[in-house]
Amino acid sequence: MAKVLTSRSENYAQWYNDLVIKADLAENSAVRGCMVIKPYGYAIWERMQRVLDDMFKETGHVNAYFPLFIPKSFFSKEADHVDGFAKECAVVTHYRLMNDPDGKGVVVDPQAKLEEEYIVRPTSETIIWNTYKNWIQSYRDLPILINQWANVVRWEMRTRLFLRTTEFLWQEGHTAHATREEAIQEAETMLKVYASFAEEWMAMPVVQGYKTASERFAGALETLTIEALMQDGKALQSGTSHFLGQNFAKAFDVTFTNEEGKNEYVWATSWGVSTRLMGALIMAHSDDHGLVLPPKLAPIQVVIVPIYKKAEELAEISEVAQNIKEKLKSKGITVKFDNDDKKKPGWKFAEYELKGVPLRIAIGPRDLKNKTLEIARRDTLTKEIISVEGIENKIQPLLDDIQENIFKKALEFRKQNTTTVDDYDEFKKLLDEKGGFFLCHWDGSDETEEKIKNETKATIRCIPIDAPDEPGKCMVTGKPSQKRVLFARSY
Amino acid sequence: MAKVLTSRSENYAQWYNDLVIKADLAENSAVRGCMVIKPYGYAIWERMQRVLDDMFKETGHVNAYFPLFIPKSFFSKEADHVDGFAKECAVVTHYRLMNDPDGKGVVVDPQAKLEEEYIVRPTSETIIWNTYKNWIQSYRDLPILINQWANVVRWEMRTRLFLRTTEFLWQEGHTAHATREEAIQEAETMLKVYASFAEEWMAMPVVQGYKTASERFAGALETLTIEALMQDGKALQSGTSHFLGQNFAKAFDVTFTNEEGKNEYVWATSWGVSTRLMGALIMAHSDDHGLVLPPKLAPIQVVIVPIYKKAEELAEISEVAQNIKEKLKSKGITVKFDNDDKKKPGWKFAEYELKGVPLRIAIGPRDLKNKTLEIARRDTLTKEIISVEGIENKIQPLLDDIQENIFKKALEFRKQNTTTVDDYDEFKKLLDEKGGFFLCHWDGSDETEEKIKNETKATIRCIPIDAPDEPGKCMVTGKPSQKRVLFARSY
Repeated sequence: MAKVLTSRSENYAQWYNDLVIKADLAENSAVRGCMVIKPYGYAIWERMQRVLDDMFKETGHVNAYFPLFIPKSFFSKEADHVDGFAKECAVVTHYRLMNDPDGKGVVVDPQAKLEEEYIVRPTSETIIWNTYKNWIQSYRDLPILINQWANVVRWEMRTRLFLRTTEFLWQEGHTAHATREEAIQEAETMLKVYASFAEEWMAMPVVQGYKTASERFAGALETLTIEALMQDGKALQSGTSHFLGQNFAKAFDVTFTNEEGKNEYVWATSWGVSTRLMGALIMAHSDDHGLVLPPKLAPIQVVIVPIYKKAEELAEISEVAQNIKEKLKSKGITVKFDNDDKKKPGWKFAEYELKGVPLRIAIGPRDLKNKTLEIARRDTLTKEIISVEGIENKIQPLLDDIQENIFKKALEFRKQNTTTVDDYDEFKKLLDEKGGFFLCHWDGSDETEEKIKNETKATIRCIPIDAPDEPGKCMVTGKPSQKRVLFARSY
Repeated sequence: MAKVLTSRSENYAQWYNDLVIKADLAENSAVRGCMVIKPYGYAIWERMQRVLDDMFKETGHVNAYFPLFIPKSFFSKEADHVDGFAKECAVVTHYRLMNDPDGKGVVVDPQAKLEEEYIVRPTSETIIWNTYKNWIQSYRDLPILINQWANVVRWEMRTRLFLRTTEFLWQEGHTAHATREEAIQEAETMLKVYASFAEEWMAMPVVQGYKTASERFAGALETLTIEALMQDGKALQSGTSHFLGQNFAKAFDVTFTNEEGKNEYVWATSWGVSTRLMGALIMAHSDDHGLVLPPKLAPIQVVIVPIYKKAEELAEISEVAQNIKEKLKSKGITVKFDNDDKKKPGWKFAEYELKGVPLRIAIGPRDLKNKTLEIARRDTLTKEIISVEGIENKIQPLLDDIQENIFKKALEFRKQNTTTVDDYDEFKKLLDEKGGFFLCHWDGSDETEEKIKNETKATIRCIPIDAPDEPGKCMVTGKPSQKRVLFARSY
């Protein structure tokens, strides 16, 4: 069997790219920096969407939809936001094409120039707060707890499938509140939703924390983040939740009458995760054989491969396989029986390993005789012969075990690759030699943060929420610090 | 209670617009022709999406995602398509903004001009077939059965909420086949899916048929359509399914090796429904009191309103109401208990009538004593006092009855407003006096079709699939015709 993937040790970036392509998750399109999400990749994204959407609804949110386009002037209204978002973006300037007078295809009709250009949304705070202005008069209209599933565009110079693309899919929550406390509470609640999703569904441990001022969302007073560690020792920011204060309310003049009859600006949050999570999912667990998917998000949880020489054998195996499939289906397990006669079992084994199917069942003539089957786990690559009898009760525990096992493995990896360092030279040395997460003291200044970033390419990923109080000295300046913060190089 | 809606008889178009706004379904945005879909409207759309998506998957389709942008040159590749779609569209010409040198906000950076402009997709045949080119080599790669949920943009001059907006949400299926027959079969299958959805879920009867050549999708050999009759006597095209022949395969050079080893162009279909269905749903059933929603698509199926004076009464009623709510919830029925103390029952009654909640339960002190409740149907506006006992088994049959009743009502309306006419003068007269659907003979020529359209504003909505063979004479030219076709004025 030819090796289809570059190995991780050989070239991690190439391994990732190979894997995304070969496992049929996504590919580059004819449009610069935009990807095509292929059916298998989209099926995983759909499962993520469904679970997240249910979690948002359980926490009281509803979905809505706001325009793709944002008038250019909206971006100028919030001073920080314009710097962060109104630069590298797609600008719509015209609304009509015409036949080329020279007869060569179509050209932009110069007559159809927009008075004010539209920006394809890179994020929707501005258009949404411009809308909320009309929805909010009194405290009775609050809170507004809205989420939107949408595509957004940020003109990226260097793109990578799922991790950084010009167009990507995401959800963006935009909430409006009567009090500062309630808005902060909301931002924290949504971070916890993201953390639960990452850990319980993606089997990916995350560190929850606050971004430093320089890493905050443009326009936010606080940005909360979940940070995951990838197998190459780099951090991946996987979801953010922002406390926006009254910045957007002030920019768009959104006020309400409070219970005492006084006029106040509305408090805001926004929070989002994107198809970037696909990149995180891929990199968190997969190996040199291909994807390793957590069973809870796998589009196919079990694949059954028949091993046969003659048609009569296939017929007999099919009967057993269909029976197993029906039994598992009734337990809510997704099963594919691959009876494609044009492909050999060995090809199928490699294919489903590549695609990260958690469990593979193989049934051959000897199994028929013995009423057994061979079951292989994708996470451990181990195989076992078990009895067909009672199979409907044996699979879910195995899937649960795989889910737990890959989480534990990722957690153990993170433990092994989280280093507590107090010396800046050692920090630089270990960053190159070992990578991973570093817990270090920092004096809290922008200057020191900037210096470390410039000298090492490592950034403060977050100030962990659960970091214990631990007085110490900044590893660079020696100034006092109250707790350790999380450093890493990142995606 | 003040009347909140213009009545249908007074001004149908105004009634529709009032209803969309007052029932909190959608509103116009700050972006010309683009709407904001509000949470209540979006909840209905989500239910539609979920049902349609399940139907697509049951018929073997999978979802994927293709880029929002399409290189301008792609539109020139299919000759008919360019005329139909590459004209009124949003054109991205630049990819960066910069601070205005005069210090007033941001301006487009003239340096950041795209070499080739991008069009915001008005439909995705071109970008998808350009992608399929790389996916298809052999008959083994076929069929490809892909659907995409996406936003699209068509620069409309006159827009109406849901019915015609510059940006709208839709799904677009794009399939690739080895044979002409299979592609035709697919286009027909998907039309049947749309028809089932319209009739069984939206409770909206539709006529299935073929479009005439002049009304076909740009690039299609055949366009199949479902046409519904609105209460003002106009037709609304509610979904289309296109047999595209080999046009896009030829335009993008997509060939495959067939089982005999010969190279052939691939056969294609595309099919779509959009948020326009929301407009159809609203107009098919609603009345001067507000929305009438089919129970199967209603975000809230039952609302419980407490009638009380004192707090103790509310407490007692709440206990009964919560109990009913739990029982119904366990049966899969969506229930809202509106115990908002700031609003009077009369206000709530009007509000839920406006929002089309199929069943309203009112519980007052006398009901507590008698162990009864008052139940009101939105479709008939009738009320009844029934016993609380066994309530969990009484509601679903009522919801089913409402679903059936509004379908029957719409079907009866269509029967009353479908006229068979043989004389062109009578056609013109009845079109003005009565409106609705007309079944007439037509000689099959573009000229006659065009003449009728110009003189009456009525178009051939479709050549019904189930139209019986019935020799006759064209009502305009007297030339022979083999069957009647469906005429109407339309949205």
